[in-house]
Amino acid sequence: MELKAPIKDMLFNIEHLSGWAAVKASRVDEGLELDDVVAVLEEFGRFCAEKIAPLNAVGDREGSVFQDGHVTMPSGFAEAYSQFVDMGWQSLQHPCDYEGQGLPRAVGAAATEILNSANMSFALCPLLTDGAIEALLLAGDAKTKKTYLPKLISGEWTGTMNLTEPQAGSDLSLLRTRAERHEGGTYRITGTKIFITYGEHDLSKNIIHLVLARLPDAPPGVKGLSLFLVPKFVVNDDGLPGARNDVRCQSIEHKLGIKASPTAVLEFEGASGVLLGEENAGLNYMFQMMNAARYAVGLQGVGISERAYQQALSFAKERVQSQPVDGTSNRAVTIIHHPDVRRLLARMRAITEGTRAMAAFTAGWQELASVSETAAEQSDAARLAEFLVPLVKGYSTEMAVDVASSGVQVHGGMGFIEETGAAQHYRDARILPIYEGTTAIQANDLLGRKTLRNGGETARRFAVMIEQTEKDLHQGSSVSQDIARQLGRARLSFLAAVDHLLEINKTDINAAYAGGVPYLLLAGNLFSGWQLARSVVVAERLKEQGDDTAFLSAKIATARFYADHILPETHVHRERITGGAESLLGAVL
Amino acid sequence: MELKAPIKDMLFNIEHLSGWAAVKASRVDEGLELDDVVAVLEEFGRFCAEKIAPLNAVGDREGSVFQDGHVTMPSGFAEAYSQFVDMGWQSLQHPCDYEGQGLPRAVGAAATEILNSANMSFALCPLLTDGAIEALLLAGDAKTKKTYLPKLISGEWTGTMNLTEPQAGSDLSLLRTRAERHEGGTYRITGTKIFITYGEHDLSKNIIHLVLARLPDAPPGVKGLSLFLVPKFVVNDDGLPGARNDVRCQSIEHKLGIKASPTAVLEFEGASGVLLGEENAGLNYMFQMMNAARYAVGLQGVGISERAYQQALSFAKERVQSQPVDGTSNRAVTIIHHPDVRRLLARMRAITEGTRAMAAFTAGWQELASVSETAAEQSDAARLAEFLVPLVKGYSTEMAVDVASSGVQVHGGMGFIEETGAAQHYRDARILPIYEGTTAIQANDLLGRKTLRNGGETARRFAVMIEQTEKDLHQGSSVSQDIARQLGRARLSFLAAVDHLLEINKTDINAAYAGGVPYLLLAGNLFSGWQLARSVVVAERLKEQGDDTAFLSAKIATARFYADHILPETHVHRERITGGAESLLGAVL
Repeated sequence: MELKAPIKDMLFNIEHLSGWAAVKASRVDEGLELDDVVAVLEEFGRFCAEKIAPLNAVGDREGSVFQDGHVTMPSGFAEAYSQFVDMGWQSLQHPCDYEGQGLPRAVGAAATEILNSANMSFALCPLLTDGAIEALLLAGDAKTKKTYLPKLISGEWTGTMNLTEPQAGSDLSLLRTRAERHEGGTYRITGTKIFITYGEHDLSKNIIHLVLARLPDAPPGVKGLSLFLVPKFVVNDDGLPGARNDVRCQSIEHKLGIKASPTAVLEFEGASGVLLGEENAGLNYMFQMMNAARYAVGLQGVGISERAYQQALSFAKERVQSQPVDGTSNRAVTIIHHPDVRRLLARMRAITEGTRAMAAFTAGWQELASVSETAAEQSDAARLAEFLVPLVKGYSTEMAVDVASSGVQVHGGMGFIEETGAAQHYRDARILPIYEGTTAIQANDLLGRKTLRNGGETARRFAVMIEQTEKDLHQGSSVSQDIARQLGRARLSFLAAVDHLLEINKTDINAAYAGGVPYLLLAGNLFSGWQLARSVVVAERLKEQGDDTAFLSAKIATARFYADHILPETHVHRERITGGAESLLGAVL
Repeated sequence: MELKAPIKDMLFNIEHLSGWAAVKASRVDEGLELDDVVAVLEEFGRFCAEKIAPLNAVGDREGSVFQDGHVTMPSGFAEAYSQFVDMGWQSLQHPCDYEGQGLPRAVGAAATEILNSANMSFALCPLLTDGAIEALLLAGDAKTKKTYLPKLISGEWTGTMNLTEPQAGSDLSLLRTRAERHEGGTYRITGTKIFITYGEHDLSKNIIHLVLARLPDAPPGVKGLSLFLVPKFVVNDDGLPGARNDVRCQSIEHKLGIKASPTAVLEFEGASGVLLGEENAGLNYMFQMMNAARYAVGLQGVGISERAYQQALSFAKERVQSQPVDGTSNRAVTIIHHPDVRRLLARMRAITEGTRAMAAFTAGWQELASVSETAAEQSDAARLAEFLVPLVKGYSTEMAVDVASSGVQVHGGMGFIEETGAAQHYRDARILPIYEGTTAIQANDLLGRKTLRNGGETARRFAVMIEQTEKDLHQGSSVSQDIARQLGRARLSFLAAVDHLLEINKTDINAAYAGGVPYLLLAGNLFSGWQLARSVVVAERLKEQGDDTAFLSAKIATARFYADHILPETHVHRERITGGAESLLGAVL
């Protein structure tokens, strides 16, 4: 089965959900047209289908292999990565000042999703490099930027994020890795980091580790963390990799999924590093980098959902089994005719399109946060984008596990056989709600920083926007009005949850946080459904104008399924939030 | 971590949910006391914890190995199986007439759960043997029973079920395996069977295959299937295995989970077989056998949920990470103090106890279906039990995947590392909603045969019983009354679903079956919650009498969590059933 990138859907989202007009108006290169975007995404889609997707099963089978401090990637990975770099794909969304292509974030997001559909293990390498680029753009001085950014943006060198230590996972205050000041303004880094994605590999000439560590005189806790750049090979004044630095890969993990992606234990033994930004401000930079990475992990969820859906759909259209339940034939039919197979596939599709739409919407606000005209507009857009990031990360990844599991189910017994491929998605997807902050960590962020801290103001602003969409829908067809009603009910559940959480938090913080993940799932569900509902408003208008009817009708059908089958889950979450804290906190375990 | 069988909970269910008094009164050996049951289960629990559970990871790592038609089981399996046989564990619930121990089904169910908690791959071998025993009891003639039953009941020989063929999975009408009449009343069987659990292994001296095949003059479809007994070694008149029969293992599958359990492709090339029961009546016998097997697979779901819960709980009590969110300490605490970890664990526990309780309740009716005094009482009990089997199979297994996934999540990044063990449960559990009939097949059974066929009568009878439990709860504490309210709401959702399905089925069969799985999940959820609610009635009474307060308080707390957090999911399913068919059947895929 050839993977087919859902470019029409992506383009619809970019044009109609991600504030394209505003983004375009504010760009220097106003000449960028949607046709250019199509051309880029189509070429990338072809490249990924032909060169990257076929390596997905190979990578799972062979895994990356550790020996004597070196990691050998699975067959074909090095060649494919070198083509990826040669064709300039790493540079898509990075600034032109450092030889990037400067495409809008919504376009970059589409490309990230495509790559992850093709091969999540492969995609993690560019994803981590993107994170390192973000951190350098934010915190690097001119010389550091000039030395490292072009190499990272081209993909010639790759990047990593070094946070976790054996005793410090979600809790970064427990980090112990030490940094000592050294001659010439450099630092010496010592400590053990675990779970370092692409911490060692044979794809590139250098690996640039971004490392959180403590200076001797640092304050305790997270306010004493500084961010260091530690290259695998120390970079000489000519900009070329020189001596091997004192950071070594000790082993890689034996994992449930993403087996081609090496997850390294790195030992830093007085490795030479460069301070990024201010001392003790490392966590702030890392948060920026993490925000980008968290958003990207959400896209991984969308990407693997898309692939699981395509694969299950293709199987369901070929596998012949059982007569139709309505007795319209006495011969066995392809299983896509059976209502429950339709249910599973429709759910997979609706979640995939819904989370994709939410990600595109988020990318629009992220873009406006940097390109809007005034600082006020920028910070306003940033606030909205920041509310959305934990939803994109948390909801899209929890749902990706659900979708991948349904993909196995559609295949029946064949789904449990590894050669079928559906099981790999189920295994690969399972990391998504864990890394870059578990769903509970995302929920703490959404609830604490993004909701409680400003008295629910951002949450309520979104609710006003949602209500506007309901009004728009009420101008449309009867299907559109049905969707409006479901959306309205879900919005009220959201508002009830927000009100309750604000209130209860005054007297019982534990009771508020007991509702954290249900609140995240409620909001992620609602916001994805909302974006599909917005799509219906657009789609009905375009249909009247005679545009691509098949695509638009499918979009409406998917939004309707989402509204009837998935949006109602918001009400259960509301019940859990408003009435479930006592039984949760009182549970005997 | 040592696996600890939840014997107190099992005993509570046997005594208070499975109609113990009625079962006991109707038994010949009225002398059987609960203390005897405790002794049996405790000894079995010790045996499983010491001998079987430690092989779970070994089996996963090594897998069963195929070479030249032979299958070698992982290290330790042969020895453990031989001890299992020597200690008589296979015979627990089988009739004394054939050297079984004749214990009630609810006790057998508890033992099955314990074994599956210890090692699902290992447990599949006795599970399939149980199925073969059921079929022989039902359809074997006196000579066949005498020859095979004692060897199967002792576990010296093992059994298999041979249904699936490459073109015929859920749809048995597509089976092609042929049977030809042969001299001396025997038959020759020819065809390919796939997905045959323990179809070949080195644990026993003989393997007894039960095979569905077609006679030359059989009518087409499922009414032309006959059931044959085909031993790996033809059994001589002296009752000992003789010549090798013409059935060979061609290969075994490379699977997502249960890797120690060999899943064989069997080639029958004129293999000698014995007809069981009547010609062309094979499906009926197989259904009986499948009912037993389906119920047992539901118990596998409970068993793996229990193990995943124990493992996650143990990790959460040890892993130190992050300060409490309520600021009561400035030191990191064990993660069980964090509200969302509590939420995950409480959910895992509530589902595990709920599905266990539903299984015990079902076992009671199954027992009464064979031991009640009158035929009318027996057939009445059978009807109730048959309604429950698809719930035990469908709901407990879908939830087991959910629970195992939560188990990974509780472990954070460590959960994704295979050595931790949580990932194995996530992989193993995934087969449960597929084999012995997918959840959709269970839903067709529940909806078509068990609900629509008798106009919803059985469903409504259960609703009346549930209402009685609500009344009982309203006599209790305020917590008990809260549970009654949630239970009542869920019951109304169930009744609304039943009414709708009966009505819509008159005009639109597809619309009814579109709601099949949601109906199964609604009913399974409700019936599990109901059994926990019944437990609260008992527990409050026993607490007043001064019985084991810690256990009873935990039982009430778990039931309360279930009522607040899980029972409300029934309302979403109701919405999907009553309002979701159109958007499902109209989905564009």
